[in-house]
Amino acid sequence: MEITQLKKHKSFSGDTCFYSHMSKVTQTQMKFSCHFASQNLKADHCIIWLSGLTCTDENFITKAGAQKYFENTNAMILCPDTSPRGLNLPNEHDSYDFGSGAGFYLNATTPGYKDHYKMYDYVVKELTELAQKNFGVKTFSIMGHSMGGHGALVIGLREQKLFTKVSAFSPIVNPVQTSWGDRAFKGYLTDPKDWNNYDATELLKTGHKRKDMILIEQGLSDEFLETNLKTNNFVEAAKDNGQACKVNYREGYDHSYYFISTFIKDHIAFHLS
Amino acid sequence: MEITQLKKHKSFSGDTCFYSHMSKVTQTQMKFSCHFASQNLKADHCIIWLSGLTCTDENFITKAGAQKYFENTNAMILCPDTSPRGLNLPNEHDSYDFGSGAGFYLNATTPGYKDHYKMYDYVVKELTELAQKNFGVKTFSIMGHSMGGHGALVIGLREQKLFTKVSAFSPIVNPVQTSWGDRAFKGYLTDPKDWNNYDATELLKTGHKRKDMILIEQGLSDEFLETNLKTNNFVEAAKDNGQACKVNYREGYDHSYYFISTFIKDHIAFHLS
Repeated sequence: MEITQLKKHKSFSGDTCFYSHMSKVTQTQMKFSCHFASQNLKADHCIIWLSGLTCTDENFITKAGAQKYFENTNAMILCPDTSPRGLNLPNEHDSYDFGSGAGFYLNATTPGYKDHYKMYDYVVKELTELAQKNFGVKTFSIMGHSMGGHGALVIGLREQKLFTKVSAFSPIVNPVQTSWGDRAFKGYLTDPKDWNNYDATELLKTGHKRKDMILIEQGLSDEFLETNLKTNNFVEAAKDNGQACKVNYREGYDHSYYFISTFIKDHIAFHLS
Repeated sequence: MEITQLKKHKSFSGDTCFYSHMSKVTQTQMKFSCHFASQNLKADHCIIWLSGLTCTDENFITKAGAQKYFENTNAMILCPDTSPRGLNLPNEHDSYDFGSGAGFYLNATTPGYKDHYKMYDYVVKELTELAQKNFGVKTFSIMGHSMGGHGALVIGLREQKLFTKVSAFSPIVNPVQTSWGDRAFKGYLTDPKDWNNYDATELLKTGHKRKDMILIEQGLSDEFLETNLKTNNFVEAAKDNGQACKVNYREGYDHSYYFISTFIKDHIAFHLS
């Protein structure tokens, strides 16, 4: 559980830090960024933020403007990279929606990928243990954007006890019905029966349910809404299966960090309430 | 004065937009970004933001978290690129502190550069006229960071009537005393007598003075404070020459956008007060 601090910047009341460590789960060097409400680099509660396709550990922490909203809390946010790096697997670097930068927060089972692309276990097991041991974290919640919104919903539905709250910006809610999901799941998963374990809408349909409300933020000018996000499929499955869910459809907002920065305050308040 | 909108993103109460246009002053295509408090893309007051070395029109608008603080105002912020682009002048792309990304907000007089690197006139004359004609702007103020803080102070001291307020983050206040300034001024200016016209501290010493207070934010863990910023030289010259000036020295903060984002709220309030 040894981690190396790469950079530290004072920001608002605390520190924004960048770390690397050798991951036992992915068998690669992994990077993540954090913001701590206080400069002691400890926190009682940790929000895990999962980023979208093509992102690294840097996008959220530089663009979302989240640091301000940790003032006067005893919390932190931790933002992992979106895939293992430094490998050279077949087709790994050929497209933006598969391989590097596109880990989809699942445990891959296909040859080559199964030894490294285990982002589900990396987030759920390794990062949480790392945060407990290094930063004194006692409780966790999870949020994310787009592919990371998919990750937050899937992990939140499957790991209900570990995460106190779940929310998402512009999530891919039903990947098995989309081109992004089809490409990723074919590339990462040998057994088609495994697909539904990584699809938030299908998880609701097969009995997974949280007692607390799930919060979703969705821009109505999001260019991926109809093709790859399909928010309404999740809303319908939640209604049919008794999952409390609040979706804020936002007129005029798109898929970008300009949208996220506008509403991140509300999501942080939701997670810390 | 024809401008082309490249991108538009709804953000908080308004729109964040990116533009390009053919500049008469630099004789190149120039880019700038804006955030408008309202989605009508008009504003009564415009803050011009000047960025630092290596930056483009994108750094401030994606990283500073400024959009929030324009809510309930009738203002905008306009962020030009830091130099002309698309040229291939001698030594233009060889180092981070001269040429592309390092225009220093002056009118160059050296061969080659004198035909394009006229960032002083570009900001003072062309951008202000462009903002009046395209966005209905009535009044201007100016702020910036590092090299852009130098630009804001120099322009603010020389163009007192045009700009209602002047402030800076981590400015290069006395470039003639620094390695950055020495390299840039030797490269851009044929006549050494011209150097003091682009040095805020020297301008104060030669009678330039604003009636209003100049606001400066400076981190005490800034790695460039002693070598290239030299804040105290400006403070002393202001004291000696009767220029009202408030410098907030901030313990623990560095030269980065994490510092800027922490205090940008105060500077926007200062400009709009």
